[in-house]
Amino acid sequence: MSAKPAGRTILASTIAKPFTEEIVANVSKLSFKPKLVGFLANDDPAAAMYASWTGKTCESLGFQYDLITVDKNELEASLIKANKEDEVSGIMVYFPVFGDRQDQYLQQLISPEKDVEGLNFMYYHNLYHNVRFLDPPNNEQKSILPCTPLAMVKILEYLGVYNSLLHYGNRLYGKKVLIVNRSEIVGRPLAALLANDGATVYSVDINDIQQFTRGDDLSEQRHKVIDLDTGVHSVESLAPTCDVIITGVPSDNYKFPTEHVTNGTVVINFASAKNFNEDIKLKAGLYVPSIGKVTISMLLRNLIRLIENREVRDRSE
Amino acid sequence: MSAKPAGRTILASTIAKPFTEEIVANVSKLSFKPKLVGFLANDDPAAAMYASWTGKTCESLGFQYDLITVDKNELEASLIKANKEDEVSGIMVYFPVFGDRQDQYLQQLISPEKDVEGLNFMYYHNLYHNVRFLDPPNNEQKSILPCTPLAMVKILEYLGVYNSLLHYGNRLYGKKVLIVNRSEIVGRPLAALLANDGATVYSVDINDIQQFTRGDDLSEQRHKVIDLDTGVHSVESLAPTCDVIITGVPSDNYKFPTEHVTNGTVVINFASAKNFNEDIKLKAGLYVPSIGKVTISMLLRNLIRLIENREVRDRSE
Repeated sequence: MSAKPAGRTILASTIAKPFTEEIVANVSKLSFKPKLVGFLANDDPAAAMYASWTGKTCESLGFQYDLITVDKNELEASLIKANKEDEVSGIMVYFPVFGDRQDQYLQQLISPEKDVEGLNFMYYHNLYHNVRFLDPPNNEQKSILPCTPLAMVKILEYLGVYNSLLHYGNRLYGKKVLIVNRSEIVGRPLAALLANDGATVYSVDINDIQQFTRGDDLSEQRHKVIDLDTGVHSVESLAPTCDVIITGVPSDNYKFPTEHVTNGTVVINFASAKNFNEDIKLKAGLYVPSIGKVTISMLLRNLIRLIENREVRDRSE
Repeated sequence: MSAKPAGRTILASTIAKPFTEEIVANVSKLSFKPKLVGFLANDDPAAAMYASWTGKTCESLGFQYDLITVDKNELEASLIKANKEDEVSGIMVYFPVFGDRQDQYLQQLISPEKDVEGLNFMYYHNLYHNVRFLDPPNNEQKSILPCTPLAMVKILEYLGVYNSLLHYGNRLYGKKVLIVNRSEIVGRPLAALLANDGATVYSVDINDIQQFTRGDDLSEQRHKVIDLDTGVHSVESLAPTCDVIITGVPSDNYKFPTEHVTNGTVVINFASAKNFNEDIKLKAGLYVPSIGKVTISMLLRNLIRLIENREVRDRSE
């Protein structure tokens, strides 16, 4: 790559910085040192590395962190115990554990009050239905958003894709976003979240392409989903029309076709694999090659929010 | 219009506010009260009104303002005299005077050192050639930009169309802008200015459509112009693909076709006529119906810049 790119690469650490500062300030105001407990019940070295990285981040920002290694058959009992322990403010599990539906059962077993990753069905339900508070009509307890979709929102705000002059809730009005990934954990909730904020989202998975919008003029209160005719629409035809392209394909072999990216597009990869070749830098306006550091900030931001929500409940009892 | 628009209308007064504050602060730092002289040599009531409005704005922001009414045949002599008067910092003429090429002669007669409107050929040349300073390689004296194109840049910055994360000079990378007006005073320099900042600009006049860009990847240092094939491209086909639509058609009969504006587009009218019907509010993301108050701020900002440039020259003598 010899030419000097017109655009810029933006690192997740740069975007995460104001959030980590905010987190440190908020932790220092608490009367106790919040504890996050992470459960590791697999032999995946990547999971162990992520666990160790979570721990270091926690400690550097003023949290306690306990990594508990358990046999997968004991995880259920361990989660039930941690749910009850007052000194535990947040719980997370390094998935996959069983790698099947049982993992979803275990995920839902974490008390919503300690679910720092925002994986509880209630939180997803609120996301899909554009419900932003847990306690209407008081609206003092904010709902938790799953870490990765939330990180993506914060990244898009930082990059100036959200337009703060527009009304809150409509700040992606007029923006077209392509998302290659429709997992239940990230891709589908992310498409819904961005559509709820006003974007037209094209959600791509291996089988089909769906469009998520609140209507062209945002007249709907929440997004609707339609299947696009793949005889007419394709990644190749949609990508050049998009303001933002987001990928999350968990495979080292997958590469997004650079030739279908219009110059100046905002490009973000949330997969741990590199979904773009280096030549994307010659096309992208702003390019964020990975987002992990923002995601972990959102994990700890959620932990603070869970504590704040508990304080609201304690006061009203 | 019964439905509540998803977008917002932004008034020029809102955008102008920080600039007028900056101007007041800068004037108060000067050792003298700068004088702007306006020459009125026609019977146009609109010109008289604009002159009176300039005067009020000048005085409210700390400037002296002299409105000099002259016969059109005496304007040349009056401009030559004002060019020489030390106490006159800025000069402007309320055009049209003769309404023909003579007006251009009179315009160029104003000393570049007092040309608050930035209408001198040297300033246009610098704009077209992306030259930002008058005194390379020292680069202490900034070139003046014509008021209306400059106002448009400031408006697009305010609206978040310029992305401040991109390198200075590339901040419109990836943005498509349609401009309906290719006058020598505003439309053509504006197209060049936005293309020099990285946009792809479609410049429309009554005869044809031109494209101004620095190349898809901004590899050119300044914009190139190509004629588009109007058998293939039209306002109707281009408008829906654009992020920004700017109009400046000086006719009450002209209305931009709302049905070709994509929802969420940024829409700006700089004509004194209303180039959009009210239903544009149901389509536009951000809509700026007129820009006069920003333009007059830029006039006074230019006046301050001319004084600063003179101070740099005085110091180096």
